[in-house]
Amino acid sequence: MSGRTSFTPQIDETALRCVAQARILYADTDKMGIVYHASYFRYLELARVEMLRSEGLPYTWMEAEGLALPLTEIGVSFTSPGLYDDRISIHAALSRVTHVRVNFQYRVVVEPGHRAATPNAEAVELLRAETRHCCVRRDSGRPAAMPEALVERLRAIQSLGRASARMPGGPTVAPSEDG
Amino acid sequence: MSGRTSFTPQIDETALRCVAQARILYADTDKMGIVYHASYFRYLELARVEMLRSEGLPYTWMEAEGLALPLTEIGVSFTSPGLYDDRISIHAALSRVTHVRVNFQYRVVVEPGHRAATPNAEAVELLRAETRHCCVRRDSGRPAAMPEALVERLRAIQSLGRASARMPGGPTVAPSEDG
Amino acid sequence: MSGRTSFTPQIDETALRCVAQARILYADTDKMGIVYHASYFRYLELARVEMLRSEGLPYTWMEAEGLALPLTEIGVSFTSPGLYDDRISIHAALSRVTHVRVNFQYRVVVEPGHRAATPNAEAVELLRAETRHCCVRRDSGRPAAMPEALVERLRAIQSLGRASARMPGGPTVAPSEDG
Amino acid sequence: MSGRTSFTPQIDETALRCVAQARILYADTDKMGIVYHASYFRYLELARVEMLRSEGLPYTWMEAEGLALPLTEIGVSFTSPGLYDDRISIHAALSRVTHVRVNFQYRVVVEPGHRAATPNAEAVELLRAETRHCCVRRDSGRPAAMPEALVERLRAIQSLGRASARMPGGPTVAPSEDG
Repeated sequence: MSGRTSFTPQIDETALRCVAQARILYADTDKMGIVYHASYFRYLELARVEMLRSEGLPYTWMEAEGLALPLTEIGVSFTSPGLYDDRISIHAALSRVTHVRVNFQYRVVVEPGHRAATPNAEAVELLRAETRHCCVRRDSGRPAAMPEALVERLRAIQSLGRASARMPGGPTVAPSEDG
Repeated sequence: MSGRTSFTPQIDETALRCVAQARILYADTDKMGIVYHASYFRYLELARVEMLRSEGLPYTWMEAEGLALPLTEIGVSFTSPGLYDDRISIHAALSRVTHVRVNFQYRVVVEPGHRAATPNAEAVELLRAETRHCCVRRDSGRPAAMPEALVERLRAIQSLGRASARMPGGPTVAPSEDG
Repeated sequence: MSGRTSFTPQIDETALRCVAQARILYADTDKMGIVYHASYFRYLELARVEMLRSEGLPYTWMEAEGLALPLTEIGVSFTSPGLYDDRISIHAALSRVTHVRVNFQYRVVVEPGHRAATPNAEAVELLRAETRHCCVRRDSGRPAAMPEALVERLRAIQSLGRASARMPGGPTVAPSEDG
Repeated sequence: MSGRTSFTPQIDETALRCVAQARILYADTDKMGIVYHASYFRYLELARVEMLRSEGLPYTWMEAEGLALPLTEIGVSFTSPGLYDDRISIHAALSRVTHVRVNFQYRVVVEPGHRAATPNAEAVELLRAETRHCCVRRDSGRPAAMPEALVERLRAIQSLGRASARMPGGPTVAPSEDG
């Protein structure tokens, strides 16, 4: 029936850095006792804005340029259920930067010891995701090319992940607070 | 960077039927003035449960059997922005049924005349999506095979879409109320 | 400690009419197995816009006038827990209309037979609420007086509830679809 | 029409401490360009759980005791609109503790310099709120009395706010990360 066998994004794990942490609330759960799938999307937004902010590029800067980066595609694979009071770490990377498109990749995990319910010796992966965005003008909603300076800054952020991946000891995991 | 060029699901449009309608609220929008991407997921849930209910298979029936169908994967392609007060129609179909897995496909559209902001002569497609679910036991969260009778009922619902697609005049579009 | 003993709004039940119905989704529930309190607020918004629309006053009309009605206060009393798959009826009324302020009152109930989990012979009240709104200009966010014509239309809608309350047989309960 | 003139809670400001901080996301905003009122409720939940956790009383401990604290009443007064990228500080206090009931009071503010959009020299208050909770058994949902030890711990937390209010220099404002 379906021509595709999977929406699981092929994540380049070596490029990911921990860019945000958050605590799962009752607000995020459903009656199955686990995190409702749609609750994760605000955490992915949190990761995007904190990753950019930590590199000196707050999203409000894009807005001030008259630009926005609406989502055009999402692919998510839910690996295991998130639980109430889990302290989640959102690892993310810019995986593609052109003048008109940007892709982010994500991996949400509960690091060892961060599951309140049943202390976990190993990291538990909750999901892998990739989001695709296009650049539009805020006033018209029409596609727009990002200025060269912005593209260069985004590419610098993109290469940070790759650089850390090449460092002995693997990627830098810098726990960053929520907000 | 990414091994995949797109998460756009390959929808079998001829199998889709309109299973739910809803009105976009302020709650669904963001400061870009359009529907926030994550707001659509509750409408996809609405479509799933109303499609099953309309065929005499309320989701609570599955719960009573001790089973649940958590999401394992999502692929979405956002075609054009949804606007406040849009009356959206969610077309959906069961696209795959095995003893352990179920897939749904969706197309969310604003039918002609259903865009309050600027009356639309043509249908406007907002998104295409596919969700993948696995069957688990509610008590343990472990994968479980659905009983044969349930699989047969789901396959009957799946074939409804295909049957209507073969009828002269194309698929039956039966607007069904929200809820 | 607190100078107030209760936030329970004093609802004029005779003025309420059923203005919207909706079905509780997994998205609305939390791990306690009941509706998460914040999930109700989008249903109250649905009730407001559908009540106004049904009287020929879509909220987009206010927007076109350059006006908005942001919330300034909320008082809610949760009477009993809402459950998954409950078909809820939202009864509402305009309880106050001045040139600069508008109040709505609400009562959310599961009418007899509308609780899927355990069929209810009697109506079950889930909550009582009142919201207060002020009129502002959309461009500046500054308080603004509504034009006389708008105030008159709102007062006509307000008096509808009172009129039906005086009719033999009590208030008209006109189940209105969601959206 | 309404017997009550206001739902504004009478907050004991001297008892409040900053218990959580968070950043406003696109997910929180609506097309009016401000925070959608219902978006604040998850931040109030965050404040409750972080206040209790910081005093050594994680909410999961209550769950393990077979108890829950569902909301029974909410009163909120929205003072001024929250904006995208605001770094909000949620000040909270336990304002009432009995064996069967608990009240929390809150004040959400943007501290000086924490408004990204237009740097603010003065703190901007977004809202004041009070929530009332009753203690129930998780299995039955029936009202239950909290064990004496739990009541004493909650009262100790309650008095912390009062104590800090009596200290020279006023209440301790200890910015606590989100999560």
